[in-house]
Amino acid sequence: MIAEIVSVGSELLLGQITDTNCVDLARALAESGVSCLRRQTVGDNRERLAESLRLALGRADIVITIGGLGPTEDDLTREGIADAIGEELVEDPSLAEEIRTLFERRGLKWLDTQRRQAMLPLCGRALPNPNGTAPGLICEKSGKAIIAMPGPRGEFLPMLENHVRPYLEKHGEGRRIRSRVLRLCGIGESMAEELVRPLLRNENPTLAPLAHLGEVHLRMTAQAATEAEALALLNSFEPKVRECLGDVVFGTDDITLEAAVVEMLREEGKSLAVAESCTGGLLGGRFTSVPGSSDVFIGGFITYRNQMKVRMLGVPEDLLQSHGAVSEECALAMAEGARRTAASDLALSITGIAGPDGGTEEKPVGLVYIAVVDASGARAFRNQFLGGREDVRRRSTQFALTLLRKTLLAGSVEGLK
Amino acid sequence: MIAEIVSVGSELLLGQITDTNCVDLARALAESGVSCLRRQTVGDNRERLAESLRLALGRADIVITIGGLGPTEDDLTREGIADAIGEELVEDPSLAEEIRTLFERRGLKWLDTQRRQAMLPLCGRALPNPNGTAPGLICEKSGKAIIAMPGPRGEFLPMLENHVRPYLEKHGEGRRIRSRVLRLCGIGESMAEELVRPLLRNENPTLAPLAHLGEVHLRMTAQAATEAEALALLNSFEPKVRECLGDVVFGTDDITLEAAVVEMLREEGKSLAVAESCTGGLLGGRFTSVPGSSDVFIGGFITYRNQMKVRMLGVPEDLLQSHGAVSEECALAMAEGARRTAASDLALSITGIAGPDGGTEEKPVGLVYIAVVDASGARAFRNQFLGGREDVRRRSTQFALTLLRKTLLAGSVEGLK
Repeated sequence: MIAEIVSVGSELLLGQITDTNCVDLARALAESGVSCLRRQTVGDNRERLAESLRLALGRADIVITIGGLGPTEDDLTREGIADAIGEELVEDPSLAEEIRTLFERRGLKWLDTQRRQAMLPLCGRALPNPNGTAPGLICEKSGKAIIAMPGPRGEFLPMLENHVRPYLEKHGEGRRIRSRVLRLCGIGESMAEELVRPLLRNENPTLAPLAHLGEVHLRMTAQAATEAEALALLNSFEPKVRECLGDVVFGTDDITLEAAVVEMLREEGKSLAVAESCTGGLLGGRFTSVPGSSDVFIGGFITYRNQMKVRMLGVPEDLLQSHGAVSEECALAMAEGARRTAASDLALSITGIAGPDGGTEEKPVGLVYIAVVDASGARAFRNQFLGGREDVRRRSTQFALTLLRKTLLAGSVEGLK
Repeated sequence: MIAEIVSVGSELLLGQITDTNCVDLARALAESGVSCLRRQTVGDNRERLAESLRLALGRADIVITIGGLGPTEDDLTREGIADAIGEELVEDPSLAEEIRTLFERRGLKWLDTQRRQAMLPLCGRALPNPNGTAPGLICEKSGKAIIAMPGPRGEFLPMLENHVRPYLEKHGEGRRIRSRVLRLCGIGESMAEELVRPLLRNENPTLAPLAHLGEVHLRMTAQAATEAEALALLNSFEPKVRECLGDVVFGTDDITLEAAVVEMLREEGKSLAVAESCTGGLLGGRFTSVPGSSDVFIGGFITYRNQMKVRMLGVPEDLLQSHGAVSEECALAMAEGARRTAASDLALSITGIAGPDGGTEEKPVGLVYIAVVDASGARAFRNQFLGGREDVRRRSTQFALTLLRKTLLAGSVEGLK
């Protein structure tokens, strides 16, 4: 079973956007045992699109397009597909009604151009798109299949998982590739690689490290005849990898650090509050990105200006005057104030200089103090982060989450080494 | 002058890496006045690579490959090029010597396989690669050109700027392409297109809409003999586009909505506080992502649990009991409480159900109330957002920023239509 991906969009050819959808699609193809030998990218041009699709249909069993399904005039994927397979587009009245209802439910004005999204070739059926208006499309004809997927990421990904991946797995061949990622925090890439060095030469599963901002991911990839066998290979390999690493592994696959930490808090029945200065809400944003985080996350204080640190958290004015807002003392006072005001078991605080301006010789851009407090005590850590404003802010939240995790592993702030 | 990009590498087809090089190359082509109508991606397979190159040479004047130039056995781009243009590869002895010297200077062990990197078709010449071992390659034959560039980013980018871009600008048709993006908020893609419809058929500059989450971007692209002329075309076209759109345009190019709104607050000397429930700090995070936002952003309240809404913002408990935390009344009380507590000129609040759980028939997932308050009054808006948890949260902050912008444009909350 051979597949070919055709990405559609002039903005791709002009270098205005990066084609990230096709990476997920390519991985899904590989995992389903479908070979992808070629990929094409074409602009919003009906003839060239039809020509690319004909070429792809001539050498692949499944052709999957990404993009060009919207309501505007330069969205031509439906037309290109119809041309390539020699069919007419006809409106599906019930589909048109569905799209219209979707519009009205959102209080959006219905324009007749939206109707284009309900046009299908006769051999086609729509793939539901609950996250947008343009449905996907699947056409099976003469032993070949064309699948059309929408370009917006929030529409593409759910359609991939809910409709396209199952279709591929049904039609793919015996071979299955499965991977699993171990996610590490509080350790650098070189050190992680050092710890697992003997396993890096393993043939099946393979092991490959990848550095992310404040995290290291180790990808284990197994090949086998069936999914069950591939998973069994991963299951027997994973403990060997973990044994080399100890407690720096916080989760697998898509588990975020914030989700792992929220789960630890939940298990221990502990509640949390945050006080943020230079991160301005990002740490709270990460905790609350976890569904159900309200079980453990009480709330937070974005004390961006000093007056807010005094008024909301009770940071003493003379402390701010003698030590400044970016200081160990202020970080400790912020965390203690947050814990007291929110009546939480634990609190985290972040105060620093995110830049690009505001740095001095004594307190340069990237200097960030991060504190944790519980009933047993309080600890603050001085960091000098590299990178631009958003890097510094992201690294600060990453450090705070890692610190909270270490505290929970240690049992209490007092237990921190 | 038409170009085609051919990216080479099985890891691209397996979804193991994202093709970011081709984005830079595509942009350089556009800026040099070279049209790129198609892109192909092929794996490390000599026949398929040669076939792709033949196809590309049949329809383009310049074919540029990325990747597959290294010393290992699966680096086959040199062979593929030789096959496609019907030439033999021969070793360039002085090039081989250069590569060997490079190796020894870096203290690396010389393996005879490295010698492959000094093989060229007879019509080819090497492009220097001071950042790696594999030189690039340029072959001109029968009025067509093939350029081969290395895949590693630290080698690719310097070769693009130092050798390929100058070549393209010399061979481009004296034509330069420049674009500018107008960024719109508070309007959907279809409606934006409706407003600028007459201009969508303009030939130079062209105008193309692109929908983003809660924003629409209109890209104007001008072609001219020189950069100055292209910019002049953009400068005279932009007012016509803006005239169709009115005040939904909040900025150009890379200006974010939060940066535009912070700038408006600064110009009017107004300060802001926020109160967030379901967004949990993301709105504060967006404001504070703008350097210098401390001039206008005082701080915020992440009142995730009801007790925090009562304690920090003074939301009446009976209001929470009678209307619930996700209600117009609560949004208004949160905004008023934030403004009062932070002593700010304006305040925004967000309270809603981000999901995936917690929805009811009466208050479904995606229901979000967003309020704005100033000295003149308070207004709350009911939204029903689509998408997953992060979509709902992101759309909520986008709506809040748009609402604040409208309020500032109207002069006051009272002035809002």
